[in-house]
Amino acid sequence: MLRSCTAGLRSIWALRGWPEGAPRLSMDLQPARRLFSTEKVIHKDWALPNPSWSKDLKLLFDQFMKKCEDGSWERLPSYKRRSTQESEDFKTYFLDPKLVEEERLSQAQLFTRGFEDGLGFEYVIFKNNDEKRTVCLFQGGPYLQGVPGLLHGGAMATMIDIALGSCTGGAVMTANLNINFKRPVPLCSVVVINSQLDKLEGRKLFLSCNVRSVDEKTLYSEATGLFIKLDPEKRST
Amino acid sequence: MLRSCTAGLRSIWALRGWPEGAPRLSMDLQPARRLFSTEKVIHKDWALPNPSWSKDLKLLFDQFMKKCEDGSWERLPSYKRRSTQESEDFKTYFLDPKLVEEERLSQAQLFTRGFEDGLGFEYVIFKNNDEKRTVCLFQGGPYLQGVPGLLHGGAMATMIDIALGSCTGGAVMTANLNINFKRPVPLCSVVVINSQLDKLEGRKLFLSCNVRSVDEKTLYSEATGLFIKLDPEKRST
Repeated sequence: MLRSCTAGLRSIWALRGWPEGAPRLSMDLQPARRLFSTEKVIHKDWALPNPSWSKDLKLLFDQFMKKCEDGSWERLPSYKRRSTQESEDFKTYFLDPKLVEEERLSQAQLFTRGFEDGLGFEYVIFKNNDEKRTVCLFQGGPYLQGVPGLLHGGAMATMIDIALGSCTGGAVMTANLNINFKRPVPLCSVVVINSQLDKLEGRKLFLSCNVRSVDEKTLYSEATGLFIKLDPEKRST
Repeated sequence: MLRSCTAGLRSIWALRGWPEGAPRLSMDLQPARRLFSTEKVIHKDWALPNPSWSKDLKLLFDQFMKKCEDGSWERLPSYKRRSTQESEDFKTYFLDPKLVEEERLSQAQLFTRGFEDGLGFEYVIFKNNDEKRTVCLFQGGPYLQGVPGLLHGGAMATMIDIALGSCTGGAVMTANLNINFKRPVPLCSVVVINSQLDKLEGRKLFLSCNVRSVDEKTLYSEATGLFIKLDPEKRST
């Protein structure tokens, strides 16, 4: 089944709205609503404390929750799968339901939420809409190892992608990530990713972030990102 | 236990040899040999076909295995944990065994090998030593989803980091990754990452790669990387 999945998936995707274009199919395409309907979605919000969270992570979480009380900050919820609303935002992507291997696709889930508590990505993002910036609190578990005892650079890149994306709002895709890894991050430690929107040019969003230790003394990484807003004009409905 | 792990790990790491320096501790540091000894290591080589591999992936694998017959190419094995030899290469990193939470650290494994067959990163890398380049065949499973039906940009960044690193040899750390995401990659599809060493300046290695579809017609991503060789002079032993 898995073998045919690959061939099936490759052929069923037709993409629209991506700035540099992508292969399209001429078949009768239908929105993938069935896959992303609320019926099968587990609505657990993963951006909340669990027993694997360190003292540092919980302390920072509590501090930001306090900042949320006057409405200047908000905590962003996080799910294993897109909500119906979010899926609506991505209507530019279509599936031919005739070719969908539902059993296989039903396994699909957000990359960073596929691990058991504490083993992978533990994180929560707070957003300040007025200041167009976010703060991501991130604890990388033992399944994210690169060099022994250190967080994998790819895991850090993944969180940077998500942190930058959280500053954008709406449906966007990453076009460029440029990351300077200045110091390696110890496995299981907590880091703070401060991200901000620097510039908006049409559908292009220019963002930047830095990754620091909880005491802010250690700068682990700096990065910039270019994200592209998906064009609602190119929706088929 | 997990809570204290974080604080413990943060305090036990002292890093040497990293080009821009990193926090050190004055305590009596010992190599982390216990953790990375061969005793507990499962020596399964994960860079070999399993039932989740698509027809495309197996076909490409067979083609490259044929190229290996005359010795011009070699398949790089891949393990969940570093071998004793590789850990020796990273002796610049130390742990204080008194502070090690062995139970927690014993869970540590390579980020890209922590998934069940077919759900995460399925890949194999072939290296051409004479030409200083590698080819990585990669199939991203349903647990690596970003936008519905598409591979997460962070998963792609992770594989790019690994693919570029495979061109270096020896103990290196990533200093910069600059990735242009040109087209989104359909979930469960196979891509080919061609990486090469462009320039060597002292301990700096400048690398580049591109990510294409199996038929080479679709260019998904291009990237450059700067890697730094760890300085053997800075080893404590």
